[in-house]
Amino acid sequence: MTPTKISETSKGVYIIAATPFTDSGELDLESTDSLTDFYLEKGVTGFTILGMMGEAPKLTEAETLTVMDRVLKRVGTRAPVVVGVSHASNRHVERLSKTAMDQGAAGVMLAPVANLKTDEQVFNYYATVAKLLGPEIPICLQDFPQSTGVHMSVSVIHKLIDDFSQVVMLKHEDFPGMRKLSEVREQSMAAGRRRISVLVGNGGLFLPQEMLRGADGAMTGFAYPEMLVQVCKLFDGGRNEEAEDLFNVYLPLLRHEFQYGIGLALRKETLKRRGAIRSAYVRRPGPMLNGTDMAELGRLIQRLERRLAELA
Amino acid sequence: MTPTKISETSKGVYIIAATPFTDSGELDLESTDSLTDFYLEKGVTGFTILGMMGEAPKLTEAETLTVMDRVLKRVGTRAPVVVGVSHASNRHVERLSKTAMDQGAAGVMLAPVANLKTDEQVFNYYATVAKLLGPEIPICLQDFPQSTGVHMSVSVIHKLIDDFSQVVMLKHEDFPGMRKLSEVREQSMAAGRRRISVLVGNGGLFLPQEMLRGADGAMTGFAYPEMLVQVCKLFDGGRNEEAEDLFNVYLPLLRHEFQYGIGLALRKETLKRRGAIRSAYVRRPGPMLNGTDMAELGRLIQRLERRLAELA
Amino acid sequence: MTPTKISETSKGVYIIAATPFTDSGELDLESTDSLTDFYLEKGVTGFTILGMMGEAPKLTEAETLTVMDRVLKRVGTRAPVVVGVSHASNRHVERLSKTAMDQGAAGVMLAPVANLKTDEQVFNYYATVAKLLGPEIPICLQDFPQSTGVHMSVSVIHKLIDDFSQVVMLKHEDFPGMRKLSEVREQSMAAGRRRISVLVGNGGLFLPQEMLRGADGAMTGFAYPEMLVQVCKLFDGGRNEEAEDLFNVYLPLLRHEFQYGIGLALRKETLKRRGAIRSAYVRRPGPMLNGTDMAELGRLIQRLERRLAELA
Amino acid sequence: MTPTKISETSKGVYIIAATPFTDSGELDLESTDSLTDFYLEKGVTGFTILGMMGEAPKLTEAETLTVMDRVLKRVGTRAPVVVGVSHASNRHVERLSKTAMDQGAAGVMLAPVANLKTDEQVFNYYATVAKLLGPEIPICLQDFPQSTGVHMSVSVIHKLIDDFSQVVMLKHEDFPGMRKLSEVREQSMAAGRRRISVLVGNGGLFLPQEMLRGADGAMTGFAYPEMLVQVCKLFDGGRNEEAEDLFNVYLPLLRHEFQYGIGLALRKETLKRRGAIRSAYVRRPGPMLNGTDMAELGRLIQRLERRLAELA
Repeated sequence: MTPTKISETSKGVYIIAATPFTDSGELDLESTDSLTDFYLEKGVTGFTILGMMGEAPKLTEAETLTVMDRVLKRVGTRAPVVVGVSHASNRHVERLSKTAMDQGAAGVMLAPVANLKTDEQVFNYYATVAKLLGPEIPICLQDFPQSTGVHMSVSVIHKLIDDFSQVVMLKHEDFPGMRKLSEVREQSMAAGRRRISVLVGNGGLFLPQEMLRGADGAMTGFAYPEMLVQVCKLFDGGRNEEAEDLFNVYLPLLRHEFQYGIGLALRKETLKRRGAIRSAYVRRPGPMLNGTDMAELGRLIQRLERRLAELA
Repeated sequence: MTPTKISETSKGVYIIAATPFTDSGELDLESTDSLTDFYLEKGVTGFTILGMMGEAPKLTEAETLTVMDRVLKRVGTRAPVVVGVSHASNRHVERLSKTAMDQGAAGVMLAPVANLKTDEQVFNYYATVAKLLGPEIPICLQDFPQSTGVHMSVSVIHKLIDDFSQVVMLKHEDFPGMRKLSEVREQSMAAGRRRISVLVGNGGLFLPQEMLRGADGAMTGFAYPEMLVQVCKLFDGGRNEEAEDLFNVYLPLLRHEFQYGIGLALRKETLKRRGAIRSAYVRRPGPMLNGTDMAELGRLIQRLERRLAELA
Repeated sequence: MTPTKISETSKGVYIIAATPFTDSGELDLESTDSLTDFYLEKGVTGFTILGMMGEAPKLTEAETLTVMDRVLKRVGTRAPVVVGVSHASNRHVERLSKTAMDQGAAGVMLAPVANLKTDEQVFNYYATVAKLLGPEIPICLQDFPQSTGVHMSVSVIHKLIDDFSQVVMLKHEDFPGMRKLSEVREQSMAAGRRRISVLVGNGGLFLPQEMLRGADGAMTGFAYPEMLVQVCKLFDGGRNEEAEDLFNVYLPLLRHEFQYGIGLALRKETLKRRGAIRSAYVRRPGPMLNGTDMAELGRLIQRLERRLAELA
Repeated sequence: MTPTKISETSKGVYIIAATPFTDSGELDLESTDSLTDFYLEKGVTGFTILGMMGEAPKLTEAETLTVMDRVLKRVGTRAPVVVGVSHASNRHVERLSKTAMDQGAAGVMLAPVANLKTDEQVFNYYATVAKLLGPEIPICLQDFPQSTGVHMSVSVIHKLIDDFSQVVMLKHEDFPGMRKLSEVREQSMAAGRRRISVLVGNGGLFLPQEMLRGADGAMTGFAYPEMLVQVCKLFDGGRNEEAEDLFNVYLPLLRHEFQYGIGLALRKETLKRRGAIRSAYVRRPGPMLNGTDMAELGRLIQRLERRLAELA
């Protein structure tokens, strides 16, 4: 059976999956399985594995393939899996992308390499890779200047959409970036351009506003993915106020997890407390929670659960 | 009567005051007055004027003095007023600081100039200015690397505290920065060092967590300063859960205003809607709200007011 | 008599003029005069005053006008004077530009404000200012990303040339930037576009290569401007090998002065040793030469003079 | 026979070795051999392989080991070989370092990971890795903020020297960085601290000045390594003027190769023209020379050779 690829009409929640390790830093494949199950149980539409928050740059090549294989097999045909393939070398991007697709991935996500400065350079980078991958591999553009240092303008995004049919999705996480999201939608419509899928990142900090501006869902992590799923569904059904009310219940914790760097440690610790993984270990160098951080997180989780109980 | 200077024991809310303009971009001194009154009515402890969010780099020298004079006269002895004096030239910092103090300011706030790279350079910069200003002018260090590009380490902060008695306050807005706040407090206590006042910035996005980690209050803007005031009072009285409940009611709007750049336009527009100023104009080049931005903001304000009505 | 404005056909050496101070940091107007005379004696084609290396951000408004007035009067009709007008506020840019032109300036130089991220933003910034200034004020675009953090793409430069006749000159100092210089020339010619003047910066480190790629001269500082003048003349006369031979004699010192930051202190010290100014003071915070720096500079000057004597 | 490790007394020229590819981008091991021989014939003291200019981030793990093995075997005991081990994951740094040492490397070179902001963070990063590697693996600190974005202060360097005996060498390539080099030497001597080896980078652009300030040699690339070798020897023998005269002959070309990014393509092309490698291919995305670049380089080489002939 052919797995479904991502496309212009993809929507919902593509969870940015964490990569679980043991307390000594080895891959924990049993936790990979349990985390995959956890995400599926919470109702995610799809997965994005081996992204920055999946600690991909800290995996060996063998580990990369192991994680990819494990998740793809576990998920099977239940959900599309996008694979992060960003790398300093185009040869690596090509090799990993093709392997991923051969094994059943739904598409690839690609951030620009560092040091691209102008629109021409950004366009040429993606154009080169798109040609290497060919029209059959769907590409999700990752627009995340806070991390990459590369600014992708709206006109570059549109030129890529015009020139490469395989560009079907934008992971929108410029910040502040709501104006940009609206411009992508409005200029695209005004020009009768192909409408692509836009999923939002940045931990979902502005998810309700972004849904109202034309996002199709979220491609981000959060240790309570069920909220992201439910919020997207409510917006999809036009129940905007309910959606935002629900979102706001989780906002204090979501904002806490939004912190760059330490956010990953907080997310893994929360996933551990929820039973989804066995260890919250983040590979070194990386953020480590101390006693104060742990107590603070515990208090925020407790406050959330109390509030959820009140609302139940 | 001698106005009160800021000191190590300062606490509460020092509002980062906006600078009102007319729709054609001239200073609007009547709005300066009404905004000053608005802040006082909402219960702020003190003011910080001519900061980055006060559009100080876009004022002429004469306008700078006009705004300073107007606010200082309007406030009188009702509250301490800190003056932002950050500038490329030390001569300017010295001149503005001394004028401000002569006219009744409570202290000065100083961010490092750009391009300081190491601890030695940051320390030397502040040491030079502290000597120029002398021991009678209280200094608030502004630690805001997202804007200045300069990283101030905990050891530099401590060395400045040790060497200069006039360093009495830290505006903490590194992000993510909660670990740093705790380190300032803990390492300072462990070493029996002078405890200075720490007020938090970043729009107050993590105010409850920061109060629990030892902050003495906030030095930030937000178009509903009464919330900041009330939250700080509740924490001060040990009513932590109530404080955070109240904070969370405003969090959706506060998070919206937190957006760098456009946040200033959103804040001014909200202040205008609340009747505090007559125009939301931001000097060019600067952010401008379009119809979508206006509708989005209106919806968030409406949601807040509905929620406040429910709770009343 | 109407002073000559810069235009698309401007060429030669526009010296980036230093701003002389006394040892206590006050403006030294006698040195301003003697430095102006020095530059004229060395044969410069024009001047650029109040640029970054002219310490413009450290001058008061009154000092800015004083320096401008003094240089414009001293130069008279002997050479065109471009005035640097870069500033955080468009109102300031407009005011200073119009004053400068009223007093006889030949045009203005404008770098983009910080935090412009995409082609659209860079274009819109310049378009807004160009409209404020009107078609009668010639503009020199300063493309200096190492200092501004803003990257100006070739297509933005071309769009500005197409839309605004007052854009007549490019100060090219992206680094490495030779490819960009060639692209400006080649794409412009291929499209039958108006050919503007391109003068190179970066201390002239690649002047021979840039002249061969289509530059019209240099807009930069160097404490031996006579070399820049002579090299440009030789290239203009097709005597390329001679030009580069001469350039290479000075290259060791030029490379030394190329160092960002401390380069200004080295340049002023050299100008002082050559009798052009009385003090090498740089306003604080700023680079200061210590004994090692002084001895090192002295040795390089001595080596240059020895070599010049050999060649004489 | 035990290969020699680098130590505090290492000096001379450690060439930053290029990694040769075929025109289709595969490793070219025959060229790896011929390039190794070329460097040895030109008299280099040692090698540094798998650095940034060796395109290490674009190699697969297997290729990394292949290149390392090939060079180590070819060099044998004729020269010490330092291996670049910088990586996002400490586990990788440890694994590669230990493999390298087992196979006969003389030490490892380590740049800090991105996003380290303060002295504490930089120190802790190196301290963690130093402990992982143990006291038997000599470490060369790479201080290259233009590329890493991380600023290493003099006090951090000294604290690392004090705490870790395995820190024996500094690759100094902060820019401008001559003051820093002097401070390392002077503060170290003043404090009676262990004196480590300092080799300079940045293509050697300031090699004579740096030798006079206390550098022990160069760790950099340049397509004419024989010049670097000869200059270091002359300085070592106190023949400073001769050394600098020789350096200046090559300075025009060296300055050309100094250009970040495209410099690597220029270096490989020059090495190819000198017969040291068969292809100048740089892995994608990477700089590519066009016709203008080729002609420009050819002219500079021709000028150099003419000058060398004159001097012969």
